[in-house]
Amino acid sequence: MSSNLSSVLRVALLGCGNVGAALVELLADPTRSLQLHERTGLRFDIVGIGVADITKRRSEEPWFPSDVLTADLSALVARDDVDIVIELIGGIEPAKSLIEAALLSGKSVISANKALLAEHGVALSALAAANGADLNFEAAVAGALPVIRTLRESLAGEHITRVMGIVNGTTNFVLSKMADEGGDYNDVLAEAQALGLAERDPTADVEGFDAAAKAAILAGLAFGGDVALEHVHREGISAIRSIDVAFARRLGYAIKLLAIAERLDEHRVSVRVHPAMVPLDHPLAQVDGAFNAVFIEGEALGSLMLYGRGAGGEPTASAVLGDLIDAARHILAKSAGVAPLQSLPIDAVAIDALRSEFYLSIDVFDRPGVLASVAKLLGDHHISIRSMEQQGLGDEARLVFVTHEASEADMAATIAALRELEVVEAVGGVLRVIRSDEETTN
Amino acid sequence: MSSNLSSVLRVALLGCGNVGAALVELLADPTRSLQLHERTGLRFDIVGIGVADITKRRSEEPWFPSDVLTADLSALVARDDVDIVIELIGGIEPAKSLIEAALLSGKSVISANKALLAEHGVALSALAAANGADLNFEAAVAGALPVIRTLRESLAGEHITRVMGIVNGTTNFVLSKMADEGGDYNDVLAEAQALGLAERDPTADVEGFDAAAKAAILAGLAFGGDVALEHVHREGISAIRSIDVAFARRLGYAIKLLAIAERLDEHRVSVRVHPAMVPLDHPLAQVDGAFNAVFIEGEALGSLMLYGRGAGGEPTASAVLGDLIDAARHILAKSAGVAPLQSLPIDAVAIDALRSEFYLSIDVFDRPGVLASVAKLLGDHHISIRSMEQQGLGDEARLVFVTHEASEADMAATIAALRELEVVEAVGGVLRVIRSDEETTN
Repeated sequence: MSSNLSSVLRVALLGCGNVGAALVELLADPTRSLQLHERTGLRFDIVGIGVADITKRRSEEPWFPSDVLTADLSALVARDDVDIVIELIGGIEPAKSLIEAALLSGKSVISANKALLAEHGVALSALAAANGADLNFEAAVAGALPVIRTLRESLAGEHITRVMGIVNGTTNFVLSKMADEGGDYNDVLAEAQALGLAERDPTADVEGFDAAAKAAILAGLAFGGDVALEHVHREGISAIRSIDVAFARRLGYAIKLLAIAERLDEHRVSVRVHPAMVPLDHPLAQVDGAFNAVFIEGEALGSLMLYGRGAGGEPTASAVLGDLIDAARHILAKSAGVAPLQSLPIDAVAIDALRSEFYLSIDVFDRPGVLASVAKLLGDHHISIRSMEQQGLGDEARLVFVTHEASEADMAATIAALRELEVVEAVGGVLRVIRSDEETTN
Repeated sequence: MSSNLSSVLRVALLGCGNVGAALVELLADPTRSLQLHERTGLRFDIVGIGVADITKRRSEEPWFPSDVLTADLSALVARDDVDIVIELIGGIEPAKSLIEAALLSGKSVISANKALLAEHGVALSALAAANGADLNFEAAVAGALPVIRTLRESLAGEHITRVMGIVNGTTNFVLSKMADEGGDYNDVLAEAQALGLAERDPTADVEGFDAAAKAAILAGLAFGGDVALEHVHREGISAIRSIDVAFARRLGYAIKLLAIAERLDEHRVSVRVHPAMVPLDHPLAQVDGAFNAVFIEGEALGSLMLYGRGAGGEPTASAVLGDLIDAARHILAKSAGVAPLQSLPIDAVAIDALRSEFYLSIDVFDRPGVLASVAKLLGDHHISIRSMEQQGLGDEARLVFVTHEASEADMAATIAALRELEVVEAVGGVLRVIRSDEETTN
């Protein structure tokens, strides 16, 4: 890369969808770019925008740099007159190869690519540092929330014990709507799709794949290690029934899909995505609709929550802009690449190693002795009951338990045994319960 | 300063109260310092701790470096073998002179001193940059919440429109308690004092001086300018009556003491501290007890909130530690002092220039025609009524209005005129109402 030490930084943009278009406006609109220069002393010159189709009309604005659109992304990344590459195309390839090429030539890279960062973040960060370049990716998790910078910088020395995030707006919208309006999962999902808040194929969101990639990134940052995506336990929300949502509310909980990175001891962590019952007095329980939040707990810190819009073109572009300014300042100070991600030996354990409190909803035939036999079965499996409620349903009844802390193995065995019990018609909802330490709530 | 480019940074600590002691533990306790080195590659050597009384026993722990206690703070700051100075003594002098001496010799400085930063932050930051040193002060506002770093870095390019913070735990505790338990201001304050949550002389907290210093700092960061403390409009909570708290709740609001930095146009801002009615569906309304939160709105960002413990030895020490690691990385990368605070020409206007919705509670004698005469007076002063409620009180009645947006001048004239009205016994509570844009709430 040719060294550029004036305060004009030359930027190559890969991808020009919602986020890219919003970013181009922040950088190229004359009013915005003047404000930006006034605030930061920096100017950014967009020297190329790599897109699949250069004939597509992208903007009516006179300042939109249509003349720099190109379909040859590799050539764009290789140009000598590029200081910083912004990757907004998503997916593993060709994003990975393009980023590697940029870093190898000493160009700093901004990426919003959660899938790529989850799988290759530590390796790419090392490549960046080896070539004196930065790799910033604030926008990869929770849009405009500064969770990456907070974990990498503000909490760099903090002994973090747990990070819990509502990091997927689609599922949070669906669960909030089910709680507020009592709708059925499939109906509410269809409504979210109609509103453009869920994809036509919603699998990545509702089955927790999106949140799992973010959980891996958060865990890596919180614990300074490399957490492989396949070690992230993943459960989605498609099995959540409206009756469970209603019961949760009555019992004082909200059901949220959480991305959790939890420290078990110095080098053992648990990284997982699953729906959970969150006490209504916990700050995460208040996070509704398409909002995101990340709740961080640490030994000295106590607790801290970041809350805001996790998606959308403009908020995400705002996060990319913050990363861009950071990279620019480092280039000008010749200090890019000095704080790569770490790869401490941390071991992400299987879910079986955990203990939780559980919510358990069981449909039974309403006969004498049913409760006794269910309660005996729980006891035989070392499941201790914290609270119980029975509800009649014609010939049937529903038993709802909240347990004391139990091992995942005991709970799995319990559920299997319950299904064998003659009086049990179905084991309905099984949900882990988040305990809020007094410390962490108001 | 003698250059030190190994990864051991030599630290001088000024002050060793709650925060200082917690920080010494984070740096000197063998387990903690090992974890810190593992996470960051850095080691910190505390070469001196400046205190007023070196004979006072500070810790029973074997790792506590009692041998480096000194009462000569000037000599400590001047030492050649100090890389970073951490100022935790508070107040203007001698903190200011000590920090200036440190910066002049190229040492980076961490400070938690809100009063000093509010008055001299921009000048000290310029001095730091001129000498190739950093001046970090995350702990000066809202303890462990990374609000300074978020504004300086993540949102460096964001066109921020408004920052609203609950940044004083004492007043938030008092107001929360009044709302939850209906207690009287003086009783609840006495309780807070008994719990150690309020000072024996609570003036700095309850009259908004503490929040005003933080508002000045937040405004400077949000708008890139220098806001003098005397331009921060300040009202405290001592006039809040339990009846107003109860009315607010019934009308769908919580009363919070807010530090507000608001952009009026490109170079005019309003910086102020006053109690305000916050709609219950606004995230700030949920922030109870001794917690702090800062809500930031920007053009691209949308909205973002940071929430957590704003005070306490350990959380504040955690913020100082983040600053320390940042300064250390910059020293090692030889990039300290590259991004000083800005001093754009921003004009903090007087409160008279603003418009707000108002809550207005008026005690009247219960006679025919009272409402008509009060309503006429409001109309004559261009105050338009959004909602109104009347409550009988024996021979008296209370009229409670929420107005549409009105100018401060019109409201001041209205109140003066109401006090002249024969049927008015007293104008009780007058509070500004925060409007939550749909955008900013869920």
